[in-house]
Order: sequence, then C-alpha cells, then structure tokens
Amino acid sequence: MPEIPFTKGHGTGNDFVIVPDPDGALDLSAAQVAALCDRHFGIGADGLLRVVRSAAGGFASDAEWFMDYRNADGSVAEMCGNGVRVFARYLADTGLASLDAPLPIGTRAGTKIVTRSDDGFCVDLGGWRTDGVDPLVRAKGLDVARPGMNVDLGNPHIVVALASDAELDGLDLSVIPHIDPVPEHGANVEFVVPEDPLVAGGVGRIRMRVFERGVGETLSCGTGTVAAALAVRSWAGGAPNAWRVEVAGGVLGVTMSDADADGEHVALSGPATLVYSGTVTLA
Amino acid sequence: MPEIPFTKGHGTGNDFVIVPDPDGALDLSAAQVAALCDRHFGIGADGLLRVVRSAAGGFASDAEWFMDYRNADGSVAEMCGNGVRVFARYLADTGLASLDAPLPIGTRAGTKIVTRSDDGFCVDLGGWRTDGVDPLVRAKGLDVARPGMNVDLGNPHIVVALASDAELDGLDLSVIPHIDPVPEHGANVEFVVPEDPLVAGGVGRIRMRVFERGVGETLSCGTGTVAAALAVRSWAGGAPNAWRVEVAGGVLGVTMSDADADGEHVALSGPATLVYSGTVTLA
Repeated sequence: MPEIPFTKGHGTGNDFVIVPDPDGALDLSAAQVAALCDRHFGIGADGLLRVVRSAAGGFASDAEWFMDYRNADGSVAEMCGNGVRVFARYLADTGLASLDAPLPIGTRAGTKIVTRSDDGFCVDLGGWRTDGVDPLVRAKGLDVARPGMNVDLGNPHIVVALASDAELDGLDLSVIPHIDPVPEHGANVEFVVPEDPLVAGGVGRIRMRVFERGVGETLSCGTGTVAAALAVRSWAGGAPNAWRVEVAGGVLGVTMSDADADGEHVALSGPATLVYSGTVTLA
Repeated sequence: MPEIPFTKGHGTGNDFVIVPDPDGALDLSAAQVAALCDRHFGIGADGLLRVVRSAAGGFASDAEWFMDYRNADGSVAEMCGNGVRVFARYLADTGLASLDAPLPIGTRAGTKIVTRSDDGFCVDLGGWRTDGVDPLVRAKGLDVARPGMNVDLGNPHIVVALASDAELDGLDLSVIPHIDPVPEHGANVEFVVPEDPLVAGGVGRIRMRVFERGVGETLSCGTGTVAAALAVRSWAGGAPNAWRVEVAGGVLGVTMSDADADGEHVALSGPATLVYSGTVTLA
C-alpha cells in the first residue's frame, strides 16, 4: 500500500484533496478516491484533483497540465469552477507552472484559462445558454412555488429569486427542492436575493444559497454562482457585467466579457487557499 | 503564524486531529481549535487531542501523558472514550509510550488506563450509575413515544429499545429527538435493537444509532455504546458482561468487570486508526 503526498485546499469552502502525479503513475480507483474524500475515515473533501501532465496521463489536451477531477464518490466529473482555481494556485505555489501569464489547464470540458485577479484567481468558463424552459420551484420554507430561470453552463442550473434576506435565511435546504417540470438530468438550484442597492460602483451584488443535485446544500458552487449572476442580470435588464456573489463559504466574482464564436464568455473569480499538506497511505 | 505537525485519526469514525505538544509550548485558542476542526476550511474532525506531558502542561495528573481534549467548537471537554483509545495508539505508534503494559493517560475526568485488546485498544471508563428517572423519547420515524433508560457515565445518556432493524433504519435523526421530561443538561440518545439471538458465544449483540446532544447523529459515541450495553443488559436480566455493539462507523466492544470502591467498572474496546500526518499553519 503506497504512501502518497497530498495537499488540501478550498475555494470559498468548496474543498479538494490535491494529489500530485506529474508522470501519470497513479491509477486511483473510484473506491480509493471515495476513501480519500471520506470526511471521517479519510482526508475529507468535496472532490479530488489529480495533478498530471496531459501527455503523461494520456489526455488529449494542448495544455501542459491536466486537472483529473473526481467527485467525492469517486466518479469522474467534467469540470469544477472552484476546483480549477485551486488547481491553478497549487501549480503556481509549488512552482510547477507560472501564473505570471494566463495559464491554460486541461479539463474534460476542454482547456480553461486561469489568471490572477484582484480577489485571487479567475477562470474563464466559456459560454452559457438558457433554453427558455423556466420551471416552478418549491422549497421547504417558501409559502408558494416560485418561477426559476434555466441556465446551462455545461451543467444545468435553475435560479430562483427571493424577496429578502429573511426569506433566504428561512429556507430549509435539508429537504430537496422540487422542480416542476422535473429536469431530465436534475439541476442545481440557486436561491438569490439582491443587495440594496443592487448595483454599487458598477458592480451587481447578490446573496445566494445553493442546493447541488446529488449532494445537498453546499458552501459554494462555482458554476452556480455564475448562473445566479446571469439570471439576476437578465431580470435587471441586462446590466452590469460585473457581479459580486456572497455564498455561505465566502465571496466570489462573476464577469461577463465580449462574445466570440462561443457567444458571451463568463468568468469566475475569488480566493483559492491551500490549507495543509501531508502524506496518506492508499488503501 | 507557526506551522505545526499533526496526525489525523479515528475510532469507528469518531475522528480527531492529534497535535503533539510534549513540552506544553502550544497555547491553542478556542478559535484556532475550531479552525483546525472545520471540515471545509480546516482539517476537519469531531475534536482535537493535544498530546502533552502532564508536568509540562501544568496538569495535576500522575500519568506521564495528558489528553487535552477539545470539542470541534474549541470548548474544553472532560473525556472521550474513542478519543483516549486513539490517543493511546498515537503514543504507542510514535514511541512516546509503550502499550506492552497498561498505559495510564491523564484526562480532565481523571486517569484512564488503556490496554491492547483483541479488537484493538481498550479503555477502562470507571463506574456508572442510573438515577431511575426513565423518560419518554419521541423521534421522527417512530409512531409513538418510547420509554428510555437513564445512564450516567460522567455524561448523560438515554437508551431507547426499538423492535427491529427496520425501525432503527427508519429513524430520521436529522430531527432532534424529544425527551420528556426534558433533562436539565440535555442528554445523548441511543436507539438500540437486539440481534437474533441476543447472546451468542456468551457475548450480547446489539445495533445502535446515536444522537449526540449539541451535535446531531454521529457515526459513533464511545460512552453511548457503553450506556447502550448497560441498558440492554439490564433489560435482559443482568447478563452477559461482554457486549458487541454495531454503530454506524464500525463495531465496538463493552465489558463490565468486578466492582471496586467506585462500583462496577465498564470498559470500551475497538479499533483505533491513524489515517495520515501533515503540517498545517496556525491562523
């Protein structure tokens, strides 16, 4: 049973076990990943980031480094907005790559570009779309069903506007929200309230709580943050293009930039923190 | 901000950050302990065990080593049955003490003796008592209130017998059980079912789920396990004096031994595991 080094990190409380494997020597089974991510019997995290050179890992990416992202249950995931920001910080802090220039990182959802930002680390998540099917959402603590806005960022989101902080704080997200019509593949649900005023210094400001499909309420969800900003911008009449989103685990920034062939791009920024490093024996 | 070494360990899923401080040089504030025990922003644990020589730490104990136990919120606690077993394993594995002979460990609840056992590590928890006030317990998932048995092991417990595995599995312990009359200082509540047959090979066998006051449902509770065995033994007519208790996080053993001046002694045994070691920067 080999002993491997790791680092623990998080972005606004969305936390990850980071396993360096530059030469692609580690073949982590789903069971091993799940054991490492177990919060009582293992290290504990929302997911695992294997740090591997694309070529060494057999990944078809033009980026030198590839983020092999796994969910806490060991399953493979395409992308993670907070994960890729933590991943970039790890590369920069360990000297494996530099963030003096925009840093491309390979993911299963294509190459993502990470840059340093005033609030930490920023990732361009590419385009987004809405399919116009806006369902009703019922949640424990809300008196009536509320209309939601559908936003697709590679993963599906439903954003629901609430009237006040009291309403947001009164939600009981230990109970899964009900979406009508039921989305074929489920959806993450973001509940948002505007701050007063909504826009200050050219920046839109909202608070958000999120229920992640298959997980429950979480401290932070990167793509959920972006979906929330996009929905509120839409409701507000299409501006501004910079947003500050307060989640349970901290504050994230969302910026919308000029369209290219993929349409308008959205970027997620905020802190990324490395908490500690250690060694663990693989089971 | 100093960097300190630590080890993460658990006993049947009841998990601890172990911080070596043999010379009593560390003065960990409640906020620092809470930050280390945070499962998303820190290392994550049910509690922290500072490993300090009694003399160096200023503790009035005749044992060489003292377990300075802190709850996850940073508050001081008297004792922890799983914690002291993990503590002893840490001392033995690191060579700070030997378990070839019974090992005394100082705690705020007095000196506890840990020995090796067939199933891992065993701690003598001393005496117990019941005050005869047996309340009714209501819990979500149970149709009617059930009578409980009061057991005091330094901390208060109410043990409730259920009829079947189905009833135990059907409990919803995300909702706090209601105890009538309400205990002045609250109580941990253990729900137990007998296995079939209850006694095999001279060993009593039960399954248990536990709701810890101020915490919620946990994977394991050392004193709760002992309370459950004591209550079921009482209901069974006073025998046997060896029990096997299956909790969500594994299997623990309880043995009752001959009485001394403190009355009958109870001991808790089971696995204690060290998962990984690392270094972390104190905030």
